[in-house]
Amino acid sequence: MEQIIKDLAVAARKAGHDVANLTTSQKNRVLLGMAAALESEKAFIQAENAKDLEAGRAKGLSAAMLDRLELSDITMASMIKGLGEVIALPDPVGEISDMVKRPSGIEVGRMRIPLGVIGMIYESRPNVTVDAAALCLKAGNAIVLRGGSEAIHSNMALAKVLQDVLATEQVNPAAIQVIPTTDREAVTLMLQLEEQIDLIIPRGGEGLIRFVAENSRIPVLKHYKGVCHVFVDASAKAEMGVGIVMNGKVQRPGVCNALETLLVHEDCAATFIPLVAKELLAADVEIRGCEATCALVPEAIAATADDWPMEFLELILAVKVVADMDEAMAHIIDYGSNHTEVIVTENYSHAQRFLRQVDASAVMVNASTRFSDGGEFGLGVEIGISTTKLHAYGPMGLKELTTKKFIVYGDGQIRA
Amino acid sequence: MEQIIKDLAVAARKAGHDVANLTTSQKNRVLLGMAAALESEKAFIQAENAKDLEAGRAKGLSAAMLDRLELSDITMASMIKGLGEVIALPDPVGEISDMVKRPSGIEVGRMRIPLGVIGMIYESRPNVTVDAAALCLKAGNAIVLRGGSEAIHSNMALAKVLQDVLATEQVNPAAIQVIPTTDREAVTLMLQLEEQIDLIIPRGGEGLIRFVAENSRIPVLKHYKGVCHVFVDASAKAEMGVGIVMNGKVQRPGVCNALETLLVHEDCAATFIPLVAKELLAADVEIRGCEATCALVPEAIAATADDWPMEFLELILAVKVVADMDEAMAHIIDYGSNHTEVIVTENYSHAQRFLRQVDASAVMVNASTRFSDGGEFGLGVEIGISTTKLHAYGPMGLKELTTKKFIVYGDGQIRA
Repeated sequence: MEQIIKDLAVAARKAGHDVANLTTSQKNRVLLGMAAALESEKAFIQAENAKDLEAGRAKGLSAAMLDRLELSDITMASMIKGLGEVIALPDPVGEISDMVKRPSGIEVGRMRIPLGVIGMIYESRPNVTVDAAALCLKAGNAIVLRGGSEAIHSNMALAKVLQDVLATEQVNPAAIQVIPTTDREAVTLMLQLEEQIDLIIPRGGEGLIRFVAENSRIPVLKHYKGVCHVFVDASAKAEMGVGIVMNGKVQRPGVCNALETLLVHEDCAATFIPLVAKELLAADVEIRGCEATCALVPEAIAATADDWPMEFLELILAVKVVADMDEAMAHIIDYGSNHTEVIVTENYSHAQRFLRQVDASAVMVNASTRFSDGGEFGLGVEIGISTTKLHAYGPMGLKELTTKKFIVYGDGQIRA
Repeated sequence: MEQIIKDLAVAARKAGHDVANLTTSQKNRVLLGMAAALESEKAFIQAENAKDLEAGRAKGLSAAMLDRLELSDITMASMIKGLGEVIALPDPVGEISDMVKRPSGIEVGRMRIPLGVIGMIYESRPNVTVDAAALCLKAGNAIVLRGGSEAIHSNMALAKVLQDVLATEQVNPAAIQVIPTTDREAVTLMLQLEEQIDLIIPRGGEGLIRFVAENSRIPVLKHYKGVCHVFVDASAKAEMGVGIVMNGKVQRPGVCNALETLLVHEDCAATFIPLVAKELLAADVEIRGCEATCALVPEAIAATADDWPMEFLELILAVKVVADMDEAMAHIIDYGSNHTEVIVTENYSHAQRFLRQVDASAVMVNASTRFSDGGEFGLGVEIGISTTKLHAYGPMGLKELTTKKFIVYGDGQIRA
C-alpha cells in the first residue's frame, strides 16, 4: 500500500506543475465540464452512493450520518451550483503586487502562485470531494483526497467523473486523486509525504484533526473547535445583545461559529441576564451559570469548571458575570479557541480596544458569531477555517490555497 | 528539565500577550535601551564570550567556528547598528487592510497582529540572539531562544542584558527567554510545546534543520539548502551572462544564494562556455561539466549524477548544456531547491515564461542569484529564508513574523 500511495502522490506532484500553468479560461472550461458531467453521470454516481448507504445501514450508522452521506438530487444540485460559484471567483494565480525598484537597480515584486499539491482528509460528506477538488483546481493546485471509509464508493465515483473531464479537456487527470483504500494506515502514510504534498487540510471531528496534527510531517491548516464568546458590556443596547446571543446560540447550534459562552458586565447583569434568559429558556436552551447568574435565573444550572472550555454544539449556554472588560478578555485568553469573539457595546473605546487586543481569528463588534464564515466575509467558497496563525488565520478561501514568490527584473545587475 | 522548559514557554506565552499590546514608541524605546546596554555591558558580555572561546579552543573548534563565535568589538558594533535598523523599520502591527462592506451590512477587514511566541533554534553565532530578539519584539512577539552549546555563556549574557532592559522599561522580561541548557533533549522538548510556541525558525546546517523539521509539532519555516541555477539562453548577452555567473559563484561561495549549476542553451554553448570557463578557471573555480561542456573545456571534470543536486558551497560549478528552455526548466524541477533561479536572456517571451513557470521562492531575469536576500529585496533586516510555501516563501522580514485576523464592525447584525 505504501507504494500505491507514494506513486499517487508523485503523480499528483507532476500534475500540479501542469495545472499550475493552465489559463483562467482553461480552468473554467474544466469546471463547466465537471458541472455538466455531474448532471449526465448522476445515475452512476447515485448507484455507487447507494452501495455506501446500504453498507452504512448494515453497520447501523445514525440517521444523521446517513443523511450526510446521501448524494440526493438536492445534494447533487448543490454541488453543481457550487461549481458555478467557483467559476465565478476571480483567479488569484499570477497576480503581481508590491513591485518596487531597489537602490541596486533591480525591480522586485511578488507573484501569486499555487501551493502545489493539497491533501484533503475528511469524514462522511462526499460532496467535499467535488467542492475541494474544484477550489484546488481553480487555485492551480493538484489534490489528493482521503475521504471517510463509509463514503468510499461515492468518493471513487465522483473522482472518476471529475478525472474523465480532466482527460477530455486534455488536462493531466492525476491532478485529482482519491486514495483508493479505507485503511487508517493510508492516512499515516500520506502524512509522511512532505516531498509530494504541500499542505494538509483535515475536516471532521476533533479526534480526526488531532490524529492528523500529531502524525503529519506536512504543514496542517486546521481548527480543533470553536469556543466562541459574546461579551455584553455595561453600555450594550439590551435588545441588540439579546438578538446577537439568540442568533449565536440557537440559529445553528451544531457548527463551530455558534456561541458557547456569554460574558456579562456586572453593571448590566441584573437587567440583561433575566431578559436574555427568558428568551433562551423559551428556545429550550439550558443555562449553565456562574453563582451570580444562578442567583438571577432560578432555572439555571450551576456551571462547573468543565463548562468554560466546552464546545457544547447543542442548546446549552455557559453564562458568567464579569467585573469589567479586562476580566472578560482574560476569560477569553484562558478558554477561547482563537475562533470568533464578539463584544456588544456602545462604548467606542471599548470596541476599539476589544478589536485590537483580543487574539482570535475573527473579532467582532455588535454582530453575531455566526458571520465568521468565508461566504459571509466575502472570500467566496470556503475550504476550511484555521485557528493557527501561520499562513491563514480564520476562514480560508481561494487565496489561502496560493502563496507568493519573489520576482526580479534586472538588466545585468550583480551584487557588490 | 521538562518542567523548566515548559515553565519558560508558558511565561513566554504570557509575555507575548503583553508585548503584543506595546505601542510602536514603547517598542522603539526598548530597542534603543538595548543598544545602549550592549555598549555599557560590553565588558561583561565579552568576558562571558571569552569562556565560550576558551572552551571552544579546548574542544578543538576550527578557526572559522571560533571566528563565528567571537563577540569582537566589530561584532558588538554590528549588533548595535542592527538594532538601529530594526528601530527604523515601520511597525507592521495594527495595520488594517481589505476593509469592505458586505451585503449583510457588516464591515469586514483584516488587522495585522503578532504571531505570539517565536522559537529560534540556531548554531554558533551568538549575535543571532540579539538580532532575532529585536526583530521579534518589534513585531510584537515573545521569543524563546535555543543557541548552540558552544555559545551558551555568550547567549545567556546577551539575554540577561536584554532582559534587564525590558525590566527597566517595565516590559515583561519573560518576552525574551534563553533555554538554559546545552542538552539536545531540550530541543526535542521545546518542539512539542505547540500550545505555547507558534512558530519555529531553525538556522544552521542541514542536519540541525532536518532534526527540527522531523521532530516538531510546531510549524517550522526553514530552508534546507540553496541549489541555485543560472540558465543562459540562446539570446543572452554574453558579457552579462559572464558577469552574473561570476558574481553568483565567486563573490561569496559559502552562502545559500550562491550559484551552484550553470545551464547553457546549446545554440550559444560553443561561444559562451569557453568565455565563462576562462574567467571561472582564472578565479580557481573547478568546473564539473556534462559531456558537451567537457568537449569545450579541457580543464573541466566530467560531472557525475551526484553533482546536479549538490550545494557545493565552495568554488565548484556544475555546468550543463541543454537543448532549450524547457529542458532547463525540467532540470530545475528535478534538481532545484525552491530557492533562487535565474534566466539570462534578451528574449521577452522567454523572460516572462521563466518568471511565471519556474517554481522557486525567487525567480529572476538578468540579475545575480546573490540578490536573493531580505535586505536587497527591501524587507529590512532578514530573519531567515523559507523554501516551503506556507506562510512565507523566500526571504522573511518583519511582516513574516506577523499574521492577520479578521475584524468586523457591526450594528447588531444577525445571520438569517
